[in-house]
Amino acid sequence: KINGDRLWDSLMDMAKIGPGIAGGNNRQTLTDEDGEGRHLFQRWCEAAGLSMGVDKMGTMFATRAGSDPDALPVYVGSHLDTQPTGGKYDGVLGVLAGLEVIRSMNDLGIKTKHPIVVTNWANEEGARFAPAMLASGVFAGMHSLDYAYGRKDMDGKTYGDELQRIGWLGAEDVGARKMHAYFEYHIEQGPILEAENKQIGVVTHCQGLWWLEFTLTGKEAHTGSTPMAMRVNAGLAMARIIEAVQVIAMENQPGAVAGVGQAKFSPNSRNVLPGTVVFTVDLRTPDQGKLDRMRAAIEAKAAEIAAELGVGCSVEAVGHFDPVTFDPTLVARVRKAAEDLGYSHMNIISGAGHDACWAAKVAPATMIMCPCVGGLSHNEAEEISKEWAAAGADVLFHAVVETAEI
Amino acid sequence: KINGDRLWDSLMDMAKIGPGIAGGNNRQTLTDEDGEGRHLFQRWCEAAGLSMGVDKMGTMFATRAGSDPDALPVYVGSHLDTQPTGGKYDGVLGVLAGLEVIRSMNDLGIKTKHPIVVTNWANEEGARFAPAMLASGVFAGMHSLDYAYGRKDMDGKTYGDELQRIGWLGAEDVGARKMHAYFEYHIEQGPILEAENKQIGVVTHCQGLWWLEFTLTGKEAHTGSTPMAMRVNAGLAMARIIEAVQVIAMENQPGAVAGVGQAKFSPNSRNVLPGTVVFTVDLRTPDQGKLDRMRAAIEAKAAEIAAELGVGCSVEAVGHFDPVTFDPTLVARVRKAAEDLGYSHMNIISGAGHDACWAAKVAPATMIMCPCVGGLSHNEAEEISKEWAAAGADVLFHAVVETAEI
Ligand SMILES: NC(=O)NCCC(=O)O
Ligand SMILES: NC(=O)NCCC(=O)O
Repeated sequence: KINGDRLWDSLMDMAKIGPGIAGGNNRQTLTDEDGEGRHLFQRWCEAAGLSMGVDKMGTMFATRAGSDPDALPVYVGSHLDTQPTGGKYDGVLGVLAGLEVIRSMNDLGIKTKHPIVVTNWANEEGARFAPAMLASGVFAGMHSLDYAYGRKDMDGKTYGDELQRIGWLGAEDVGARKMHAYFEYHIEQGPILEAENKQIGVVTHCQGLWWLEFTLTGKEAHTGSTPMAMRVNAGLAMARIIEAVQVIAMENQPGAVAGVGQAKFSPNSRNVLPGTVVFTVDLRTPDQGKLDRMRAAIEAKAAEIAAELGVGCSVEAVGHFDPVTFDPTLVARVRKAAEDLGYSHMNIISGAGHDACWAAKVAPATMIMCPCVGGLSHNEAEEISKEWAAAGADVLFHAVVETAEI
Repeated sequence: KINGDRLWDSLMDMAKIGPGIAGGNNRQTLTDEDGEGRHLFQRWCEAAGLSMGVDKMGTMFATRAGSDPDALPVYVGSHLDTQPTGGKYDGVLGVLAGLEVIRSMNDLGIKTKHPIVVTNWANEEGARFAPAMLASGVFAGMHSLDYAYGRKDMDGKTYGDELQRIGWLGAEDVGARKMHAYFEYHIEQGPILEAENKQIGVVTHCQGLWWLEFTLTGKEAHTGSTPMAMRVNAGLAMARIIEAVQVIAMENQPGAVAGVGQAKFSPNSRNVLPGTVVFTVDLRTPDQGKLDRMRAAIEAKAAEIAAELGVGCSVEAVGHFDPVTFDPTLVARVRKAAEDLGYSHMNIISGAGHDACWAAKVAPATMIMCPCVGGLSHNEAEEISKEWAAAGADVLFHAVVETAEI
């Protein structure tokens, strides 16, 4: 078993960097705080005897050598970046549990045939720069490096410039590495494991996603002196589209979610009808057919609502992945590890997207989940117990060591 | 008649300060650009032989002496501040037409018994600091100076600090001045005069207003892994309230408007259901009973919608004025001036709020309006013709000179 206290202490130490306003973290991608978190992780990796590589997207790869020079490495990873009001565990648990696996192997003197690489993927959250899982997406060949470098935050700063600014632009070509297998350990971020009273989620699938960014063009006009009949009200169009998204999600129950997290009125003045409204629909389901049908339904309904109000409507897909099926051999290995360790477990479909979804494109991949209190994530109040954290890390330890071959 | 070319040239010169992005202006209250606009106006006033007073709200009063030391001044004014994406005429026309009246009197050697004071009221727009017409409101005793100084912009900067910063904190007590009469000339900001093909709007009333700022409290949660049934979705509540506001406005036709110009999601991340949503309803009608009933209906419906979704809902009134009836004697004087000058005219109710609404609390007051193209205002594309501008300034000239007594 791994050292649960040490894992927890590392989680708490990392959480000191980029503290939030309500007990969580604000350590968004390519901010100074992200840089500081990376340095701490690097120091820990060096102390554990790992050698660090960084690629051109800023992803960190900390390698423990294997005994066979020809054996491809087993990758274990997740991300250290957070939402603007994020929790202490989302992503961080997967990276630091990977490090804890190495530390425990060092303690126990375990040597493996395959190298093991602990990975901190850059820009997983997609909060500052859409889409999410950007660096793993480039790694898997889903996006070009140029596309990624050109992604802009709300202030218009680009990924490429910010990566250079914080000093984490690496030399390695992105995706040049080949993987023997990829494991990602993550908090569930949903309510199922806690409700079912299971310690371990054996992740068999991940639901697919569309992020649809709508730009509605109305006519800026005075809220007081513009008669109702003359209004070209982009805000009203947004309101009706948000309601339509809710209706479409409810029509597709069970097994689908959709909602709006981001919305921006321009010029955003109390006495000006908005000229432009931009907002993003986040739509997910594990069912490929449903995913595409829901996307089409939302776009059609939005176009209809906008047309009725005379509002211009354009839509850009700023994030997408199809539903993922994880590697059956690795899934079975995770299940067996939980079984052998005596942890209660169940199969689960990941509601959130993860770097494992892109890694699965280029290697056998799977995930392990632990419960989180109230299913709450993307909230500073996100919480797990030390025991939950340790149980999943034990499973990760066993699955990784078995895959890396003693 | 006044000099229409000179008036137009001054309008174009002022528009060079704080240019917008689409031909209009961004010269918001207490910004550096506002300071620059004030200095230009001050230079023009000095060149016209006026003496400048500034009060503790930053309102500028440029006085042309009268012959009777006991006679109260006739005030002519409006505002030089703009919306973030504002037009070149909204407010500016009234101030510079006041200056043009003085310049024309100087040209013609007209002396009056009553002094004449050209006024630039501070923070009329209410875009940066709510409520609108803040300085005239303090002048009329509607708000305390402390309340006004404490008003905050979106970055948390206060009115008091920003007034000091730009160097326009005057020494005069606000509201210490007594007025013989108050005239305000303004573009209509609505479609009526143009549609009716009239040169002059004789403003008899102004509709009343409520600005209701709603704060909705949901539960920040992951958009992907939070089941629909577990969501406490403040954004969805906002969407339904915006639709309800529209329905209530339409139920109250004709003679009422309501809409939402400002909305802010927090944390405003694509994959986080918003924890907090703040937005402002702007509601207006000239009918006092309807104004109060609509406010009550909107608040009740919002509370019901929020409760259904489990979302917290609080509301703060951040702006209010009751419907205004302007002084019948001054209204008749404006109508007669238009008649005498041979300009087509009609009675009109102001759709927008104006400093005249507060001035009317402490003095006989009225307004003059000219058409604007397509009824468009609070839009950089706001437009009027030189002839329209001059016609209203002529009417202002006659009405002011008659009131100030030769
Ligand atoms: N795990 C996680 O929250 N990833 C962010 C991308 C997503 O929204 O699913
Ligand atoms: N005239 C004008 O646009 N004033 C701003 C206050 C309002 O919204 O009516």
